[in-house]
Amino acid sequence: MEPRLSFVTLGVSDVARARTFYEKLGFKASSDSNENVTFFDAGGVVLAVFGRASLAKDAKVSDSAPGFSGVALAHNVRSEAEVASVLAEAEAAGATIVKPSERAFWGGQSGYFKDPDGHLWEVAYNPFFPFDAAGHVVLPYEKS
Amino acid sequence: MEPRLSFVTLGVSDVARARTFYEKLGFKASSDSNENVTFFDAGGVVLAVFGRASLAKDAKVSDSAPGFSGVALAHNVRSEAEVASVLAEAEAAGATIVKPSERAFWGGQSGYFKDPDGHLWEVAYNPFFPFDAAGHVVLPYEKS
Repeated sequence: MEPRLSFVTLGVSDVARARTFYEKLGFKASSDSNENVTFFDAGGVVLAVFGRASLAKDAKVSDSAPGFSGVALAHNVRSEAEVASVLAEAEAAGATIVKPSERAFWGGQSGYFKDPDGHLWEVAYNPFFPFDAAGHVVLPYEKS
Repeated sequence: MEPRLSFVTLGVSDVARARTFYEKLGFKASSDSNENVTFFDAGGVVLAVFGRASLAKDAKVSDSAPGFSGVALAHNVRSEAEVASVLAEAEAAGATIVKPSERAFWGGQSGYFKDPDGHLWEVAYNPFFPFDAAGHVVLPYEKS
């Protein structure tokens, strides 16, 4: 298996509502999207929204009541101040703020919002993880 | 907000066990990893494993019992046959197969496994979504 994550699919109750939410945040829907699924280019990985029941059925798992999903997506930004402004933008688009921008225990600045289906997003400024020209976080690897 | 997904963080019960699992699958841990968190470069997006309770606490959400998370990650492959071989590799690394490789309703080939913490991964061959040179799925966008 090559070390690649290709897609992140979020199960949602209303695909049209989720599409509108992510479009308001600046994501652009692929022309291959339809009423059942919407695909967004999220910078080298595809973000998809798909009916929650359909996703459970496709994966052959039970669509049990959601507790804490145990998953958080993150959008990293280029400055401390941008954390609060992106959280405000998300709230204006219909998100719920679960943690306002604050100093993070790991030395950066961070906050969290939930999308209209409860999926958690962290908005983070991490001075230790720089971006490359394409906006991807560059992880440190020791030279071997 | 720029349309980028920077991180996917999976909450796990045992960071060392999760790290071993993903290393067996071919992911390489960043030297910034430690006993509390491990970071993997997953091709432009960072895959992180972090204590589930710590993740809930960081996001200020309740660490309630997990039902269906409503999230599926996906690893796309280059051929139909590779779906079964990646599933076998995941099983050998400690995953549980929840759906063996089979013809998908959308015209490709797909199966699912759960990682040791129950996080769902789809392994998919999609002939309609080609890869670029870096192994990223290229979504179609109509020219505007």
